[in-house]
Amino acid sequence: MRAAILSTGDELTTGRTLDTNANYIADQLLGIGYEVVAMMTVGDFPDRIRNAWRTLFEQADIVIGTGGLGPTADDLTTETVAEMLGVPLISDEATVKKVRGFFELMGREMPPNNLKQALFPQGSTILNNDMGTAPGFRFSLEMDDGPRHGVVMPGVPREMKHIMAEEVLPWLRGLRADNREWLSHTFQTFGLSESALDEMVAGAVDESEGRVAFRAAFPQISVRVTVDGPAETLAERLERVAASIRERLGDFCYAEGETTMEAEVGRVLIAAGSTVAVAESCTGGLIGHRLTNVAGSSEYVLGGAVAYSNDMKQSQLGVSADTLERHGAVSTEVAEEMARGARRSAGADYGIATTGIAGPGGGTEEKPVGTVCIALDREGAVYSHRYRLWGNREWVKLLTSQIALDWVRRAVAGEDPTASAVLKK
Amino acid sequence: MRAAILSTGDELTTGRTLDTNANYIADQLLGIGYEVVAMMTVGDFPDRIRNAWRTLFEQADIVIGTGGLGPTADDLTTETVAEMLGVPLISDEATVKKVRGFFELMGREMPPNNLKQALFPQGSTILNNDMGTAPGFRFSLEMDDGPRHGVVMPGVPREMKHIMAEEVLPWLRGLRADNREWLSHTFQTFGLSESALDEMVAGAVDESEGRVAFRAAFPQISVRVTVDGPAETLAERLERVAASIRERLGDFCYAEGETTMEAEVGRVLIAAGSTVAVAESCTGGLIGHRLTNVAGSSEYVLGGAVAYSNDMKQSQLGVSADTLERHGAVSTEVAEEMARGARRSAGADYGIATTGIAGPGGGTEEKPVGTVCIALDREGAVYSHRYRLWGNREWVKLLTSQIALDWVRRAVAGEDPTASAVLKK
Repeated sequence: MRAAILSTGDELTTGRTLDTNANYIADQLLGIGYEVVAMMTVGDFPDRIRNAWRTLFEQADIVIGTGGLGPTADDLTTETVAEMLGVPLISDEATVKKVRGFFELMGREMPPNNLKQALFPQGSTILNNDMGTAPGFRFSLEMDDGPRHGVVMPGVPREMKHIMAEEVLPWLRGLRADNREWLSHTFQTFGLSESALDEMVAGAVDESEGRVAFRAAFPQISVRVTVDGPAETLAERLERVAASIRERLGDFCYAEGETTMEAEVGRVLIAAGSTVAVAESCTGGLIGHRLTNVAGSSEYVLGGAVAYSNDMKQSQLGVSADTLERHGAVSTEVAEEMARGARRSAGADYGIATTGIAGPGGGTEEKPVGTVCIALDREGAVYSHRYRLWGNREWVKLLTSQIALDWVRRAVAGEDPTASAVLKK
Repeated sequence: MRAAILSTGDELTTGRTLDTNANYIADQLLGIGYEVVAMMTVGDFPDRIRNAWRTLFEQADIVIGTGGLGPTADDLTTETVAEMLGVPLISDEATVKKVRGFFELMGREMPPNNLKQALFPQGSTILNNDMGTAPGFRFSLEMDDGPRHGVVMPGVPREMKHIMAEEVLPWLRGLRADNREWLSHTFQTFGLSESALDEMVAGAVDESEGRVAFRAAFPQISVRVTVDGPAETLAERLERVAASIRERLGDFCYAEGETTMEAEVGRVLIAAGSTVAVAESCTGGLIGHRLTNVAGSSEYVLGGAVAYSNDMKQSQLGVSADTLERHGAVSTEVAEEMARGARRSAGADYGIATTGIAGPGGGTEEKPVGTVCIALDREGAVYSHRYRLWGNREWVKLLTSQIALDWVRRAVAGEDPTASAVLKK
């Protein structure tokens, strides 16, 4: 099946917004065996939107579009599709209720133009959106050489991803004419570049057995293997190829399936009945933020300190003035005292600390930008290591938080995190 | 002048690599007054590449392409363009020398297929690439309704950006028949939905005077107005339309230009020579993270506490057991004690605190999911308010952090943040 992706919005054609939707959708389609033959982006102009749909339907059986569903005057996708199909717009009562309810919940007056979001081309199927007010929809049309299907979703990534998972992917799976099924397994990795990963798994899976795809959207660097064929033998074949990849990845794989480092940390902490406290300097709260993005994290995250200034490191975490004086704020010694202070004051099982120079300023000859010290304190043991990271401020913060979270994961597993080859680099 | 952008490569259509080139080129083109009417991405297939060039030349005077210039068999752009133009490929001696020299310099044997990079469609102009072995090139063709120009650059962002700056942009500037330019101004807003914003500014700017575009990538909700025409009068015309929008937005606009709430908070804190400390419960560190994403934030962010558990609220922030007992952790009373505790222990000018129920669990009849209390403590005054927010866990955290940051901004300006209509809802 040939698929195409259409992204709509002036913010894309003017370079104001980086389009991550098309990339995400392409990856999802590949996973269920749809080949993306073209991706297109146009601004909020009816003629350009119309041209784009036409162009893509000439090349693909399925066109998946995002954007232009909002309530504002420059959201033109729905009208344009209805016009292309030669059908009127019909108001959907359920959606009207939902939009009204949303604004009542917010205790706000609903701007009348929001009812625009309840209009759909006659005959189209509404795609439910639990994450926002604008549902998506899908439609079909006949062309000389066969049927075509179109999907329209909001451009807000959070909403688009939800609709893709709940409504679009299941439908696309069912749409396939053949009885070929697609099954895939994902490995979450940390510590290797995409190209290094590529080399590591090269040859592990024969082209005829399965297809290996990489995806690097840091901090998510995943390897996915997909097998296809008759449903009966699929699970068994998938496990066979997955096993050979699992063996190659070894310690670089921190979890399997669609998960994240913070979710995995939460899983192992709950399993162990343990708790964690954070002491963040250069990460400024990012580790706590990521840990608490996981539902139920209040079970194992006690809290901690964001100790940006030296005074805070002393008052909040009990770092000694002497240690700060002798080794400087960015040192393994200070990191260790921070980790211990966080763990003890919180009464947690694990204390994780970061202190470093995220840049762009603050670097020195001896401690250049990217110098980061991480420490983990547990009953009877404390670990620390000084890293030399690279990249801009946000990247250093993100990378530091990823390393720190992996330290916690390994410590809960009884490992010495500083002993891991993955984290040595 | 109408421009279009073409990105080539299987890594893009399979979702393996996020295309940042098209976004960069679109932004650069806008800056010199070229309107991007379409962006397209195709994999490494001759027919798809050919279709893409044809499709884009139908809509644009200039098509800027990236990718498919490498030495490997799946790099097909040059051949495809030559075929489209109906001209042979000519080897460029200077490029051959350069490629040979490059490999000699690296002391490596040159794989013969690298000479492929020295082939160009007859009559095309070579675009020098100081960052790599593969030069780009540009070509022209005549169509019934006028001339077309094509540009081809390597897909490696570093090389593409260099060629854009050195070769393509100067040429494009010279190519312009008119002296028309584009100029735009951005307003950052908070407190209004995109649709409410739309209504608020509707009619403020006449279509003929300028174009108003919205962008809602929460927490960034911005309004941008763009004017175009002869360069001379542009700045003055832009200021006229901007003024009318500024008047409409009033208190809902927290900053102008390409900035963020956290950067604006930093700007006002530095201007006032003040410092801030955070006390985060439901935001889990997000406020500290956002504040410290701003370079130089160590000047005004002292730190604070992530007090997820009640014990931490007492031990780290000095919240009284009695207050916790009487009002519960999610209460304005506790939030006020948290804010005071953070400010005093840090010796900061402002203490900002959040406590709430981000969900999905933890809600009660009296305090449902989305109940959030925010407090700000300053010398001689403390403010607090209980909000009823909506959405999933990440959304509640993000919205809470945005409100809290705006509280700080307003407090530094001498306002009572709880008095603002923007934040009442």
